[in-house]
Amino acid sequence: MLFHVRMDVQLPPHMPAAQADELKKTERELAHSLQRSGKWRHLWRVAGQYANVSVFDVGDVEELHALLTSLPLFPYMQIQVMPLCRHPSSVRDGDA
Amino acid sequence: MLFHVRMDVQLPPHMPAAQADELKKTERELAHSLQRSGKWRHLWRVAGQYANVSVFDVGDVEELHALLTSLPLFPYMQIQVMPLCRHPSSVRDGDA
Amino acid sequence: MLFHVRMDVQLPPHMPAAQADELKKTERELAHSLQRSGKWRHLWRVAGQYANVSVFDVGDVEELHALLTSLPLFPYMQIQVMPLCRHPSSVRDGDA
Amino acid sequence: MLFHVRMDVQLPPHMPAAQADELKKTERELAHSLQRSGKWRHLWRVAGQYANVSVFDVGDVEELHALLTSLPLFPYMQIQVMPLCRHPSSVRDGDA
Amino acid sequence: MLFHVRMDVQLPPHMPAAQADELKKTERELAHSLQRSGKWRHLWRVAGQYANVSVFDVGDVEELHALLTSLPLFPYMQIQVMPLCRHPSSVRDGDA
Amino acid sequence: MLFHVRMDVQLPPHMPAAQADELKKTERELAHSLQRSGKWRHLWRVAGQYANVSVFDVGDVEELHALLTSLPLFPYMQIQVMPLCRHPSSVRDGDA
Amino acid sequence: MLFHVRMDVQLPPHMPAAQADELKKTERELAHSLQRSGKWRHLWRVAGQYANVSVFDVGDVEELHALLTSLPLFPYMQIQVMPLCRHPSSVRDGDA
Amino acid sequence: MLFHVRMDVQLPPHMPAAQADELKKTERELAHSLQRSGKWRHLWRVAGQYANVSVFDVGDVEELHALLTSLPLFPYMQIQVMPLCRHPSSVRDGDA
Amino acid sequence: MLFHVRMDVQLPPHMPAAQADELKKTERELAHSLQRSGKWRHLWRVAGQYANVSVFDVGDVEELHALLTSLPLFPYMQIQVMPLCRHPSSVRDGDA
Amino acid sequence: MLFHVRMDVQLPPHMPAAQADELKKTERELAHSLQRSGKWRHLWRVAGQYANVSVFDVGDVEELHALLTSLPLFPYMQIQVMPLCRHPSSVRDGDA
Repeated sequence: MLFHVRMDVQLPPHMPAAQADELKKTERELAHSLQRSGKWRHLWRVAGQYANVSVFDVGDVEELHALLTSLPLFPYMQIQVMPLCRHPSSVRDGDA
Repeated sequence: MLFHVRMDVQLPPHMPAAQADELKKTERELAHSLQRSGKWRHLWRVAGQYANVSVFDVGDVEELHALLTSLPLFPYMQIQVMPLCRHPSSVRDGDA
Repeated sequence: MLFHVRMDVQLPPHMPAAQADELKKTERELAHSLQRSGKWRHLWRVAGQYANVSVFDVGDVEELHALLTSLPLFPYMQIQVMPLCRHPSSVRDGDA
Repeated sequence: MLFHVRMDVQLPPHMPAAQADELKKTERELAHSLQRSGKWRHLWRVAGQYANVSVFDVGDVEELHALLTSLPLFPYMQIQVMPLCRHPSSVRDGDA
Repeated sequence: MLFHVRMDVQLPPHMPAAQADELKKTERELAHSLQRSGKWRHLWRVAGQYANVSVFDVGDVEELHALLTSLPLFPYMQIQVMPLCRHPSSVRDGDA
Repeated sequence: MLFHVRMDVQLPPHMPAAQADELKKTERELAHSLQRSGKWRHLWRVAGQYANVSVFDVGDVEELHALLTSLPLFPYMQIQVMPLCRHPSSVRDGDA
Repeated sequence: MLFHVRMDVQLPPHMPAAQADELKKTERELAHSLQRSGKWRHLWRVAGQYANVSVFDVGDVEELHALLTSLPLFPYMQIQVMPLCRHPSSVRDGDA
Repeated sequence: MLFHVRMDVQLPPHMPAAQADELKKTERELAHSLQRSGKWRHLWRVAGQYANVSVFDVGDVEELHALLTSLPLFPYMQIQVMPLCRHPSSVRDGDA
Repeated sequence: MLFHVRMDVQLPPHMPAAQADELKKTERELAHSLQRSGKWRHLWRVAGQYANVSVFDVGDVEELHALLTSLPLFPYMQIQVMPLCRHPSSVRDGDA
Repeated sequence: MLFHVRMDVQLPPHMPAAQADELKKTERELAHSLQRSGKWRHLWRVAGQYANVSVFDVGDVEELHALLTSLPLFPYMQIQVMPLCRHPSSVRDGDA
């Protein structure tokens, strides 16, 4: 089941650089793992912004919420979720 | 080059059904062709809305504009374009 | 799987009363049937507005979209969908 | 009498973890008690957000306000209240 | 129970003057009756706009909705409802 | 002359409780006095929010501004002012 | 008493030119008269828009509302009213 | 050349009173001087808000920007600029 | 003097094609002439939209307003004007 | 390829002046260099605001994102990107 997710990150201005780096490193490793598992199907950077647009492929909404709240940057993100479904004009197997 | 495009369709309430059907049929055929060519890389329906979220892969902005304005439903759509780039945490070749 | 759906209805000002009545009658019958099947789990009127707030319980997003677009009033509604999941503080079996 | 309530929580970034945990624990206990009493009729998590959508069943607006302002997280929440009434197409006794 | 209601009226540009006059006359008579009964407690014009701000005093939300939808101008109004309660600093009996 | 005023209060998260209590106490006393003088004609709490909706009856705009800026909580409030006038359908002497 | 008023005009697309011209001519004559009387103290065009920003000097809100609703273009305008008062740093007699 | 300017002031909550007073004093003196020179043609307080609406009469946009950024409160203001021109229905010499 | 102008065009759905073509042809000729005169300094299409972003270089606001309202498509455009000035970091003569 | 970029700067209120000056100096030097290379094609100040409107001419979206995130003020800016293309009515070579 597919969900369109937009995440806007805003770290507190006074967070020490070491803490920010550690957060980003752990975030990246989890992102890698979730992409390889196929759960985090697409991940793009929004040009000019500390934000991404993603597509998740999960078994249900509970799994989506568990994944998103497990992200180390979750407390510093604004997240918008939009459920997607197959478009009747789509011919691409990978978008089902 | 990747662009995130959201299209919201609103046909005039008094458009004859035959005209609407013809528009949608031509739109679908063009969507098929653009997807097969790889230009219209992703196409999803937004759940509960007469709207789609798409990702286009084009050579430049001119080509994107030409494709979007060639859609038969273009005069009846609100379109929002957002340039995307590869995310540093992406491990998926298909998202570059 | 639960989805929070808000529907705002706006019939065209010139729709003949007989057509509007027929639409509403068919809508009501389908709403009854979907509620009895358990798919349309909750349905409330928003006070002072021609709008409802609903909770749907469906197998996946495709089913939700199929149900919403099958509603006779669908062409005349603005629909907003928000995926829900069980709240960690919930003690109510019926909200899972 | 039914009220649709959306609560968005935002704890101050510098709140000590122990204080946050204590707040959440007390909040959860009160939520349990209010749900068991039937006052807090529904409670769902909004997917991907530190927010909930709830339905309260109270005797009047005064009682609703007293319940909401008694929540330990009240000072850290944005709250939107929307009065609901029975939908003419509803067939579900529990939504009256 | 008190509800703050704002109504913005917009008559269709092509409504015949006689029909508009008849609607407004019936609306005014009902407004008079509801004010005299105490249900429509306050009614003010918003300066410079075809809009009013009102306070209704009703037994419950169902009654409020029934009153609002019984207004002849209801199909031509945007309505916003906001539940009110007694302010702890209020000393005015009439505002309870 | 009547003005509809909405005040949303937000105290800084780190304000000491004693200072907040003192502010609220002085605010309440001034609110009492202004209500008794007839200047602050109505005062209601917005359900679920640290906000009020009020109606002021003042000699002119200057007086309104002087009253609002004299409130101890003024530096911590977002204030929206909307001039009101008698509604042609009003039958209530107290709303003139 | 001073009020800042912004008026955005939108004539229906199908209004005959003669009717529009007549409306504008009557509007202009009334505008002249109200300016000469001192009631319509300032009147500026917003660059690039069919809109104006005005300052009215009236005895009370009732008079302001009566003036605005007497304008021939009133049914075709969106109007926003904002009460003004003398600025403590103002040194200009004409702005009191 | 005329520009409509709205300035909303928000001083940081922890600014020492002496610093705030000094800022406001210098601001007032500059405002006096600019009004006397005719550059700051109108200056009104927005009722109930720490905000003003002003009209500047400057030689060009560069001069406007230089004046606004020279204000001591500039770092603490949200500023909106709207170019004005003479209204065809204006009869007031002072508004040209 | 430079002004940033965004124009969004929306032709009425029922305008005959011949009338639309004639309007666009006259608009294009005027755009050519204004560009050649240097008044319309920049003109870009917003990708995916029937809209443009422009920069005008005019003697004053009056001239800007006269140019914009002389455009044949003016009655069908939403226009937003934003005054620009030279950026202190600009090294480009053509942007002064 | 052209992109319209708007940048709104907001430095943290407590940033030491020396740090702010250093940031601005480095930003200016980079801005100079990018303008001279032709990548940062236009740069204007928005009147009355700590903001700029720019046009970038880059090879692709990746290059645009790399340039924007390399700006020393990037962590303190809100950035909006809008892809542009040649307007069919443009006669100016420099806008292609």
